Amino acid sequence: MKCTRCRAKAEVHLRAHNAGFCRPCYLGFFRRQVERAIAAECMCTPEERVLVAVSGGKDSLALWDVLLDLGYRATGLYLAQGIGGYSTRSQEKVEAFARARGLTLRIVELGMEGPGLAVPDVAAVTRRSACSACGMLKRHFFDEAAIAGEFDVLATGHNLDDEAARLLGNVLRWQVDHLARQRPVLPPTHPKFVRKVKPLHLLSEYETAVYAFMRGIDYVVEECPNAAGATQLVYKDALNRLEAASPGTKLAFMREFLRTGQRAFAGRPAEAQGAPQTCTRCGMPAWGEVCAFCKLVAEVESKRARAVTGPAA
Amino acid sequence: MKCTRCRAKAEVHLRAHNAGFCRPCYLGFFRRQVERAIAAECMCTPEERVLVAVSGGKDSLALWDVLLDLGYRATGLYLAQGIGGYSTRSQEKVEAFARARGLTLRIVELGMEGPGLAVPDVAAVTRRSACSACGMLKRHFFDEAAIAGEFDVLATGHNLDDEAARLLGNVLRWQVDHLARQRPVLPPTHPKFVRKVKPLHLLSEYETAVYAFMRGIDYVVEECPNAAGATQLVYKDALNRLEAASPGTKLAFMREFLRTGQRAFAGRPAEAQGAPQTCTRCGMPAWGEVCAFCKLVAEVESKRARAVTGPAA
Repeated sequence: MKCTRCRAKAEVHLRAHNAGFCRPCYLGFFRRQVERAIAAECMCTPEERVLVAVSGGKDSLALWDVLLDLGYRATGLYLAQGIGGYSTRSQEKVEAFARARGLTLRIVELGMEGPGLAVPDVAAVTRRSACSACGMLKRHFFDEAAIAGEFDVLATGHNLDDEAARLLGNVLRWQVDHLARQRPVLPPTHPKFVRKVKPLHLLSEYETAVYAFMRGIDYVVEECPNAAGATQLVYKDALNRLEAASPGTKLAFMREFLRTGQRAFAGRPAEAQGAPQTCTRCGMPAWGEVCAFCKLVAEVESKRARAVTGPAA
Repeated sequence: MKCTRCRAKAEVHLRAHNAGFCRPCYLGFFRRQVERAIAAECMCTPEERVLVAVSGGKDSLALWDVLLDLGYRATGLYLAQGIGGYSTRSQEKVEAFARARGLTLRIVELGMEGPGLAVPDVAAVTRRSACSACGMLKRHFFDEAAIAGEFDVLATGHNLDDEAARLLGNVLRWQVDHLARQRPVLPPTHPKFVRKVKPLHLLSEYETAVYAFMRGIDYVVEECPNAAGATQLVYKDALNRLEAASPGTKLAFMREFLRTGQRAFAGRPAEAQGAPQTCTRCGMPAWGEVCAFCKLVAEVESKRARAVTGPAA
C-alpha cells in the first residue's frame, strides 16, 4: 500500500479513514487531527496554561507530546494511586518521559494526601469498586491541582475507543442526562473549576498507539489490574467487532452523535442540582454542604478508626 | 432450578428476567407478555380483523398461534418470494400449520403477480440487494393484501432481537428520523393503509423459539440464504455478546428507548414529505405520482425488455 499523501511506501493503514500513510505523513495526519479537534471545539488557545493528566499510558503521553509539538504550554500531572507495581511502573514511565524532554511534571501521591487514600485502601475500607474510588479521587485531585497551579484547562487522553464505549453505555441504558453532557469540552461548573478537554476524542486507540510508537514514546503497556472485567471493556469489544465488520463505525457513531444526535438531548441536563456551593471542609466547590471527596475522606477516617479500636462493646 | 411461579422443576431459564419456568407456566408467561404488549401499545382489540404476515419461521408462526390463543381473529398471509428451496420449504411449513388447525391462509406468489417479480429476479435485473428488493415487495404486497381483505391490522413477528438490532443500527448512525419512527405500532400513513403492529417486540428470539418448541410448532429452521453477511446479523451478534456479559441488556435497551429515550427524537419525523397522494398506475398510496412499487415494476419491465431485444445498435 502507498501513502495516500506522498505515494511513498505506507507504514500504517487506517481502514476507518480508507487511507495509508508513511511515517512523516502519519505524524502530520495525527497532529492535524488534534489541531482540528481543538479548533472545532474551542478547547484551548496557545496563550492558555494547560495541565495534562498523564497516567503513563500511550494516550496521555501521546497527548502531552502532541500538545507541546503544536506549541501549547502543557505541564504534566501524575496521580500516584498506589496500585502496587502497576503504579510504580507507570510513574517511572512518566518521570522518564518528562526528564528526557526537560518538562515540568507535578506528582500527587494519594498515600501522602491523607491516611488510607491510596485507591486499594479506599476500595477495601469503603467497599466501593476500585474503579469508582479511583474515578472520584481523580476528579478531586485533578481539579485541585488545576486550581492550585492556576491553569486554564485540564486535558485528558480519552481516545475515540473510550468515548465511543462510554456513549454506547449511555445509549444502552438511555441515560438522557449523561447523553446531554457527553462532550469533548466540559465548561467549568463553578468559577473555581477549570475547563476540561479531550483533544484525542476522535483518534482511536490504535491511532494513538501508532503515534506513540513512531515518536519513540516509552509507555506502560499493561492495563490497570483493576480494569479486568470492567463493563467498559465489554463495550469496547462490541464496538471493535462492529468496526471490523464495517470500518469507520466508531468514528461515525461518535461524530454523528456530536453533530446531530446529541441535539435531541440538549437542554435536558439535571439542572435541578442548582449552582454548586462551597465545601465547608476543604473550600472546594460542592453540591451539598460537604463535597463528595471530603465525605469519602470522613468515611475512610471513621471506618479506619473503628477497625483500630474494634467494635464498641 | 425451580419454576419461579409454581416451584415445579423449571424447564427454561430466562437470565434476562432472572426467572425459571416449567412448561405450563412458561406458556402462560409468554401469553401474558404478548397480552401486555398489545394492551400497553393499543395494538388491536378482539373485535378487529388481524392479518398476520407469516414466513414459516418460529416468530411469525408463534405469533399467529398466540394471537388465536388470546382470542384474536387472525388470518395468515404468506408471500411466496421465489427464493428457491428455502421458499418451497417455508411455504410447506406455513400450509401444514394452517391445515392442521383449520385456519384461513392467504398466499401471494410474487412470480404470479408480474413477470420477473420473484425476489432473485428483481435483485438480478435491478442490481438491488436481495434484502432491499424483498423489503420493498413485502411492504407493497402486505399493504395490498390488508386493504383487499378489509383487515384492520397487519401483525408481523419481529422479535426483541430484530428490534434491538434495528435500534442499534439507527443509533450507530444517529438516524434521528428513523429513531423518531421506530415503534411497535405504526399508525397508517394514509386512509387506505392499515395499522402495523409487532406484538413480540419485547420477546427475544430465544423466548419465541422456546414457545414454538413447547407448542409443537413445526417451523423452518434455516435462515433465508440472502441473510448471510447482512449487517443486521452483525448487530445481533454484538448485542448477544453484551447480553451474555450483562443479561437483560437488550430488553432494557429497547424498553428504555420506548419509555424515555425516544421522547428526545419526538416531533422530528420528516413530515416535510406531506400527505401521500394516489399512485396513477395502481391506485395505492404514493409519495410521488407513481408509488415505489410501480416504479420498481416499470424498471423490471424495461430492463427485461432490453435484455430480450439486446442493446440498441
